[in-house]
Amino acid sequence: MPTETIAWTDGHVRLIDQTLLPTETRFLDLTTVEEIWEAIKMLRVRGAPAIGVAAALGVVTGVKDSPAQRWEDFERDLSKTSDYLASSRPTAVNLFWALDRMRRVAESVRDQSVEAIKRRLLDEALEMIEEDNRVCLAMGEHGASLIEDGQGILTHCNTGGLATAKYGTALNAVFTAHRQGKRVHVYADETRPLLQGARLTAWECLQEGVPCTLICDSMAAVVMRERKVDLALVGSDRIAANGDAANKIGTYMVAVLAKEHGIPFYIVAPLSTVDMSLPSGDRIPIEERGKEEIIQGFGRQTGPSDIEVYNPAFDVTPNHLISGIVTERGIARPPYTESLRAMFE
Amino acid sequence: MPTETIAWTDGHVRLIDQTLLPTETRFLDLTTVEEIWEAIKMLRVRGAPAIGVAAALGVVTGVKDSPAQRWEDFERDLSKTSDYLASSRPTAVNLFWALDRMRRVAESVRDQSVEAIKRRLLDEALEMIEEDNRVCLAMGEHGASLIEDGQGILTHCNTGGLATAKYGTALNAVFTAHRQGKRVHVYADETRPLLQGARLTAWECLQEGVPCTLICDSMAAVVMRERKVDLALVGSDRIAANGDAANKIGTYMVAVLAKEHGIPFYIVAPLSTVDMSLPSGDRIPIEERGKEEIIQGFGRQTGPSDIEVYNPAFDVTPNHLISGIVTERGIARPPYTESLRAMFE
Repeated sequence: MPTETIAWTDGHVRLIDQTLLPTETRFLDLTTVEEIWEAIKMLRVRGAPAIGVAAALGVVTGVKDSPAQRWEDFERDLSKTSDYLASSRPTAVNLFWALDRMRRVAESVRDQSVEAIKRRLLDEALEMIEEDNRVCLAMGEHGASLIEDGQGILTHCNTGGLATAKYGTALNAVFTAHRQGKRVHVYADETRPLLQGARLTAWECLQEGVPCTLICDSMAAVVMRERKVDLALVGSDRIAANGDAANKIGTYMVAVLAKEHGIPFYIVAPLSTVDMSLPSGDRIPIEERGKEEIIQGFGRQTGPSDIEVYNPAFDVTPNHLISGIVTERGIARPPYTESLRAMFE
Repeated sequence: MPTETIAWTDGHVRLIDQTLLPTETRFLDLTTVEEIWEAIKMLRVRGAPAIGVAAALGVVTGVKDSPAQRWEDFERDLSKTSDYLASSRPTAVNLFWALDRMRRVAESVRDQSVEAIKRRLLDEALEMIEEDNRVCLAMGEHGASLIEDGQGILTHCNTGGLATAKYGTALNAVFTAHRQGKRVHVYADETRPLLQGARLTAWECLQEGVPCTLICDSMAAVVMRERKVDLALVGSDRIAANGDAANKIGTYMVAVLAKEHGIPFYIVAPLSTVDMSLPSGDRIPIEERGKEEIIQGFGRQTGPSDIEVYNPAFDVTPNHLISGIVTERGIARPPYTESLRAMFE
């Protein structure tokens, strides 16, 4: 049974601090919106769908003590909370999708009492968790249909239950195939700089009993060349209308290497990750993070302190390198401008 | 002025402990062959040409106290020392090249006294250092001719002075271009798992005053796509007769990415790295190293202790991805079977 990544418990947010895994399993109880903002910013909770859930619960937390009695006053507090949470991380569209959804829900009941609006917001956030679970299970089934018995599957970053409320995206497709009795072997890129593959994916595979070999990112080319890998499955933080997909830095590298070796490369992501307002991926904002993640990542200084560092947290894989996009409603195929639009109809 | 990576000082080996850089500059005085074996094995000295020099000085150290009075007895001690040093690291051919050269030199004076043979071995090792310096300076000139004013150059692992006795291979080509007045900018792959790019290349660029940006290996694809990089220059640990080249793990990834982005990819390595006895790269032995380098590399545990890890220290780049091989005698071009053979004539 997967760990619950994030939940609403006794009137507050409880989440597993992913920065401490795999050596420590610690749950945090967060009672203020500032704590939730910090947890998103510092990647205590990460993964596009999980960030969406954290944002929704962040809205609930931020407005629950609002003294407003009228919609106009409450709306001001709601906007403030929402804008604040939006400033935590820029790339994952699920964050903005969740904030927008919470605002629309509030507006739809604006003629009710503030207490009723607050209850409606909590119900919506809890429904988003349930929805995330259903969506992940559906993606897992569709994704598993791509996996054949005996295959090696390369993953990048973490796309297991820890990336969502509970079940996961790309890694859940592998776990679903495993539960169906297919023999699978995960090759997990460690995913520098923050090592979500080493810390989280490897840990989840061990928990699930799925064979997994951990490699450095630069070894992906070699395991492909040695035919250890038959398929690459990754997640996404924002997909443009044409199928260009932003994901953890290094994903574009995996896609180029997969093409060179004739290995299918699939994105597994819910439709909440698709940003139909963006015609192509070059408009996706890419978060740049601090140099300390690269030269001081894990307890010891590993580069000169005065060296210049480039640390984009994401990259964009162009649609022509993507074999298909697995969503909860099935697998979109090129041309994505048409197939993704059809998914929303 | 570059640091002397390894030298013979006051009757023993002195080398800079590269595992402590960039935070500590410590020189080690090694007086036994066991200490030299350990220094090679643990990468206190690394880089194919520097390993060759370390092996030659290791032979001198291993036999200097031999009580043998006759060639037959001395030859037994020499063989034992040589076989022992050969067991330190399997991939870099320069190690075996240096050991073989030392043995042949000893044999050429076998009719002299053991003391004279010992002196001859020391002279040969010192000549190898001088030769390495001349060869590096020549490669630097040839390599610099590939670099145009204003270019970005991607490097992988460390190929500066620390990889040789003093001057370096691929990185020295960049430094030579810089000294010629060309504006250059190095993009240094950090080079997981042991971070020679972050620890050594970045440090050497700062020492030399050459602009350098440190990136994670998985970001190489992005800096190429963003046209920050015009050229890729790497070293090699063993080159087969057909031009297939073994080098630090991740080099093959760089070569595939360079091809995808239309970026020239060059190897810079002395002819002592070319193993004409191997028709192709699939016969190059690849060293596999321990899992702790990947899950416990930075002083803190970054992966589950019971996860399976694949840690090849090198990969082989096939000749068709290599634009040219820069040696001390000029730049070999495809087909390498002919051009490399011509270099030895």
